[in-house]
Amino acid sequence: MALLIKAGREAPENWIRAFNAAFPDMECRVWPEVGKREEIEYFLGNELPEGEFAKLPNLKLVAGTRVGVEGLLKDASLPRHIPIIRNTDRQRAATMTGWVLYHVIRHHRRFAEFAANQQARKWEHLQFTAPEKLRIGIMGLGNLGGTVARSLTALMYDVAGWSRSPKKIAGVESFAGAEGLPAFLARSDVLVSILPKTPATNDLMNAERFAQLPKGAYFINCGRGTTVDEPALLAALDSGHLSGAALDVYKVEPLPADHPFWGHPKVAMTPHYSCTGSASYGAEGVIEAIRKVRAGETLTNTVDRKEGY
Amino acid sequence: MALLIKAGREAPENWIRAFNAAFPDMECRVWPEVGKREEIEYFLGNELPEGEFAKLPNLKLVAGTRVGVEGLLKDASLPRHIPIIRNTDRQRAATMTGWVLYHVIRHHRRFAEFAANQQARKWEHLQFTAPEKLRIGIMGLGNLGGTVARSLTALMYDVAGWSRSPKKIAGVESFAGAEGLPAFLARSDVLVSILPKTPATNDLMNAERFAQLPKGAYFINCGRGTTVDEPALLAALDSGHLSGAALDVYKVEPLPADHPFWGHPKVAMTPHYSCTGSASYGAEGVIEAIRKVRAGETLTNTVDRKEGY
Repeated sequence: MALLIKAGREAPENWIRAFNAAFPDMECRVWPEVGKREEIEYFLGNELPEGEFAKLPNLKLVAGTRVGVEGLLKDASLPRHIPIIRNTDRQRAATMTGWVLYHVIRHHRRFAEFAANQQARKWEHLQFTAPEKLRIGIMGLGNLGGTVARSLTALMYDVAGWSRSPKKIAGVESFAGAEGLPAFLARSDVLVSILPKTPATNDLMNAERFAQLPKGAYFINCGRGTTVDEPALLAALDSGHLSGAALDVYKVEPLPADHPFWGHPKVAMTPHYSCTGSASYGAEGVIEAIRKVRAGETLTNTVDRKEGY
Repeated sequence: MALLIKAGREAPENWIRAFNAAFPDMECRVWPEVGKREEIEYFLGNELPEGEFAKLPNLKLVAGTRVGVEGLLKDASLPRHIPIIRNTDRQRAATMTGWVLYHVIRHHRRFAEFAANQQARKWEHLQFTAPEKLRIGIMGLGNLGGTVARSLTALMYDVAGWSRSPKKIAGVESFAGAEGLPAFLARSDVLVSILPKTPATNDLMNAERFAQLPKGAYFINCGRGTTVDEPALLAALDSGHLSGAALDVYKVEPLPADHPFWGHPKVAMTPHYSCTGSASYGAEGVIEAIRKVRAGETLTNTVDRKEGY
C-alpha cells in the first residue's frame, strides 16, 4: 500500500510526517518517484500530467490539497469512479472566516471613514446600523461558508445563505437553487460569495443580479473570480448601486496592472489570499478518508463531478 | 411601585416600552418628574444630582445604562447597601467583539500593507502567522471580555485572559492577579484591554508593563483610556518595541486636536465608539434584576464598590 504525493507550495515532509504517524504500514512516495504503480492506492495533490492517473490501476482515493479541484476534474484519465475529496480543513475555514469578518466589520462599522477622520483630527461619532438589522447573505454554505455564517450570527448579524440544496444552520435563513436566488439577493445588504469555480457559477454575478441587490449593498468575493462579470461589477459600483466591494479573487490572476480594480476608490483588494491551510490540518481530513476507504465505509463530502465541486 | 429614569442618549420611551410589557403594575417616571419619592424603588441611569439618591427612601436597585458606573460610585448620597448593576448587554458584547476582531485581523492579516500594495498595483502574497501561533491576551474577562475571547478562539487564535480572579473559559488560558500579570504579558503578541476604569487599573499599562510584552507586540484598547500611561505607550511605539496600537479610549475625551495619537503612523483610532447598546437589549438585564429583587432572590454580577466595577 502506498500514497503518492504531488503537493503544492508546502513541503511533502509535513504531510508525510502526519501520514506515517497515522499509518505506519503505508509508504509515502513523492512525485515523480512513483515506484511500482500498482502499489499506489491514494493520491494527494492537485494534478498529474495528462494520462498518469490511468497508469495507477489500484487507485482508490484522490485528495486535493486545495479548496478547488479544477485541475483534477479536467483530467480525463482520472477514472470517474474514484472518489475525490477537497481540502477545506479547519485552518482554511478559520482564516477565510477572519478575512470575511474583517471586510464585513470594516464596511458595517465605517472604519475607512474613521481612518479619514483620524487624518483630519476629527472626533465624530459616525452612526452604524444595529448588527441585527444588517442583512448578510452568504453564497455557498459548505464547510467554509457554514463556518463564516456561524461566526456572523455570533456577532448578531441577520444572516441568510444560498446554496444548491437547502441547508440547516441555526439562526441562518436558507435559500436554495435558481428559484431562491432573487429573494436571497433582494435581502442581502452585504453579499459574500464563497462559491466554487464551476460551469454553473460562471458569471453568476452579472448586471441583472447585481441590480437585484438592495441599493447601497456591499459585495465581498473570496470564492472564485469566475463568478463575477467584472465590467458589470464596475458599472454597479460606478452607478452608486453598490457602495463598495472587497475582492480576493479575479478572472485573471495575478490581476493585470492596468485593471480598473487596482485604483478604484470603492474596491479593497487582496491577491487571492483569503485563506491558508497547512499540512498538519489538511492531513486530518485525508487520514479520516483513508481510514474509511480501508474500512470499506462510504465517504461523505466527496466532489460531485457533475456540479464541479 | 415606580422606576425613575434618567437615561443617556437613548429616548426614555424605548426603555419604558420594555418595562411596561414586563411589569404592567410598575409606573415609569422620567427625571426630573420624580413624583412621590417614597414610591421610587428602582433607578435607571448613570447619575443624579448630588444628594438626590438620599431622598429616595425605598430605593432597592440602581441600574446603569452603560458599561462604566463611575458616575454612580462617586455619589456619596447613594447608600452603600443598594445593589448597582452595569449594562453589558449582548448587543454591546457583540459590537465590541466586532471592533476587537477587526483590529486583531487587520494586524494579523497585514491589511494595511495590502492596502498600500493595492495603491502600488503590486500583487504580493504577504505571509502571515498561522492563527494558532498568534498569542492574544485579553485583559478583563467579564461578560464583554469573555465574549471577545470566545470569538477569537473560534478563529483558532491562541487566547489567554487576565482577570482579578481565575476564570474558566473553554480554550482560554487564565492568568489572575498581580502575580499572574508578568507571565500573561510576556506571552501576548496582541494585548487587548477591556479593563474598566478603577483605581487599580489607573496607568496599569505603563513603561514597565509595555516592556514586558514581546518585541513587536500590538496593543488594542477598548476598555478605558485611564488604563494607559500615554507617554509610555508613545515611547514604546516610537522605540519599535510595539508594532502598533488600535485605540478607542483616551485619558482626555474628546482627544485634543494636538495630541500625538492623531497623526501617529502606528496608531489606528476611533472616538470611544467600540460598542453600542440599545434599550431593547439593555432592558433584558434590568428586567431580570427587578424580577429577582421582587422575588427576594440574590442578584448576581452586581458592582463591587471596593473594586469599582
